[in-house]
Amino acid sequence: MSAPIRVAVTGAAGNIGYSLLWRIASGSCFGPDQPVILQLLEIPPVMDKLNGVVMELVDSAFPLVQDIVATSDAEVAFGDADQLFLVGSRPRSKGMLRSDLVAANGPIFVGQGKAIEAAASRDAKVIVVGNPCNTNCLIANHYAPSVKNFSAMTRLDQNRAKGQIGSVAGVATGVIDDVIIWGNHSPTMYSYVGRATIDGKAATDVLDADWIANHFHKTVSTRGKAIIEARGASSAASAASASIDHMHDWFHGSNGRIVSMAVRSEGWYGVPEGLIFSFPHIIDDNGVAHLVEDIALTDYDRQKIQVSIDELVGEREAVKDLLG
Amino acid sequence: MSAPIRVAVTGAAGNIGYSLLWRIASGSCFGPDQPVILQLLEIPPVMDKLNGVVMELVDSAFPLVQDIVATSDAEVAFGDADQLFLVGSRPRSKGMLRSDLVAANGPIFVGQGKAIEAAASRDAKVIVVGNPCNTNCLIANHYAPSVKNFSAMTRLDQNRAKGQIGSVAGVATGVIDDVIIWGNHSPTMYSYVGRATIDGKAATDVLDADWIANHFHKTVSTRGKAIIEARGASSAASAASASIDHMHDWFHGSNGRIVSMAVRSEGWYGVPEGLIFSFPHIIDDNGVAHLVEDIALTDYDRQKIQVSIDELVGEREAVKDLLG
Repeated sequence: MSAPIRVAVTGAAGNIGYSLLWRIASGSCFGPDQPVILQLLEIPPVMDKLNGVVMELVDSAFPLVQDIVATSDAEVAFGDADQLFLVGSRPRSKGMLRSDLVAANGPIFVGQGKAIEAAASRDAKVIVVGNPCNTNCLIANHYAPSVKNFSAMTRLDQNRAKGQIGSVAGVATGVIDDVIIWGNHSPTMYSYVGRATIDGKAATDVLDADWIANHFHKTVSTRGKAIIEARGASSAASAASASIDHMHDWFHGSNGRIVSMAVRSEGWYGVPEGLIFSFPHIIDDNGVAHLVEDIALTDYDRQKIQVSIDELVGEREAVKDLLG
Repeated sequence: MSAPIRVAVTGAAGNIGYSLLWRIASGSCFGPDQPVILQLLEIPPVMDKLNGVVMELVDSAFPLVQDIVATSDAEVAFGDADQLFLVGSRPRSKGMLRSDLVAANGPIFVGQGKAIEAAASRDAKVIVVGNPCNTNCLIANHYAPSVKNFSAMTRLDQNRAKGQIGSVAGVATGVIDDVIIWGNHSPTMYSYVGRATIDGKAATDVLDADWIANHFHKTVSTRGKAIIEARGASSAASAASASIDHMHDWFHGSNGRIVSMAVRSEGWYGVPEGLIFSFPHIIDDNGVAHLVEDIALTDYDRQKIQVSIDELVGEREAVKDLLG
C-alpha cells in the first residue's frame, strides 16, 4: 500500500459532506489501494453533529482510513493536507441576492485561504464546492499564493449535461465524451457540445439543434432549482459525486477525455486574467491539468461565454475590498 | 463489460437509500465493470421525492447505470431483480415497544415476500436492512419459497465491533479479521472475538478481557442509540455502507475472511430451525455462503447467544398469524 494522503473536507457535517465522506473513505476517489487520513472542519455550533458523523465513519470500518481528525480550527484541518474539498459555505437564505451571497461568503474564504497558505502541502490540490464557488475560489487562491492548484467545481454541470444528453439520446452516459462547461457555476454558465461525441459520433449530428438551443442549456443551468422543487432539498449526493469525479480525474488522470474545471484564467479564450473560469482540460497520468486550447468557438459561443465573464467580473468587483 | 444486473432498492427515497444508491451506482458494490439497472421502490406519498432522487442520479452521469425505474409497485421494482436491498420499513415511533414494531412491519414484508416470489430472479440475493430486520426477513422468506438466498443485515454490528477494536488497539480496521456477530440485529446480539485476529495475533491476547466483557459488547449493541444522540438522526451512511459490504462480499466472495450474516437456521449451534439468525460465514468466489461450523463456544458464549434466540422466538411468536 502507498503512504496515506491527507484529505481535508470543510462543511463535513453538512449534507454534501455526509455523501462525500463515504465515497472518499471507500476508495471511490483516490483508489482502492490509497490509504487516507480524513481531516474534517466544521464551525463550532455543529461540532457535536460532526462527532456523530465521525462515529459513523468509525462504524463503517473502512480499511483505507488510517485516522480521522475533527476540528473547528482551519489550520489543523488543512495541516499538510494533500487534497482539499472546500464544501462549507454560507447558504443563500430567502430574499438574498447573488451579490449578498458573494459578500457573505468572502470573509470565510479569506480565512480559509490564509489557513491553506499557513498549513497545507505546497502541492495540495483544492476544489471549492461551496457557492458562489468561482469567486470563493478566487478569494482563497489570492490568500494562498504558494499553493498553485486551486479549482472550483463545474463538474456537476458537466455531469448534468451528460445526463440530459443520455436521456434524450437514449444511451448510457459512459458513451458520451467531451461535453464542456464554460464560465461560472451559476445560471450564466455555458454548456457546450461542439466537441462532444456520442458513441464516437459528433453530438451535433445526433442531437436536435432546436433541443440544444432551446432546452438543453436551460435545463442544465437551472437544474439546481428543479432538484430543490422535486426533492424538497438541494442537490447533495450529486454534488458530492461530481466533486469525487473532479478530484478522481485530477489525481489519476482523465484518460484522454476532456473534463471541465474552473481555474485561474491566464487570458485564455479572451477570459480576463485572474478570473476563476471553467475551461476544458485534459489531465495527464501525473495529475497535471492541461488546457484544451484548440476549441473553435463561434460568435454565438463567444456571446454566451461573455455573459459569464461579465457576471464573474461583477462578482470580483463586489469583493474587491477583500482582495486588497 | 458484463450484462447488466437488476438491483432493487426499497425505501429508496429515505436516508439510508440516499447513501446507498450512489455507492451502488458508482460500482462500490458490484465492481467497476458491472453495469446495473436500478429498480427503486417507494410508497406513493414520497414518489415526488423519489423522482428528485432519480434526477440527481441522472445528474451524476454514472457510466455503469443502464436504466433507472422508480415505482410504487413492488412487482415492478422486483421484476427479474438479481440483488435486492429491502431497506424501507416502518420506523419506531415514540413509545412504541419492539413488539409493536414487529407487528407494524409484518404486513409490509408479507407483501414484499409475495412480490419477490412473483417477480424476482430465482437466483436473487436478498438483504433485509429495514428493522426489525431478522423477523422482517423471516416473513418475506416465508412468502418467497422459490428464492433461497434471503439474509438480514448484521454487518453493521460487525463493522461497529471492528471500529471499536481498532480504536482501542490503535490500528486501522484493515488488519482486524473474523469478528463475529451472533443472533438478532438488536441489543441482544452477541459480538464475539474468540476467533478474531489483530494483525494476525489472537484478539483475546491483544485486548483487555475486562474491556471486552464490560465495555465492548455494550458499546456495540447500543451504538445505534449513541449515534442518534450525537448526530440528531439515526445511522444512515454507516448502515448503507454495511449493506454494501454485505452484498459486495456475497457477490464477489469474502476472500477467506469470516463475515456475519443472518440467515435461516437449520438448527446450527443449537439455534432453532427456521429462525433468521446471524452466523459466521465464508463466501466462496462463486458467491456461495458457507457456514463456519467449527467455532468452539464456551458456556458463557452459549448463554449470550441464548438471549438472542429467546428474543427471536418471541418475535416469531408475535407474527405467527402472518406465517399461518
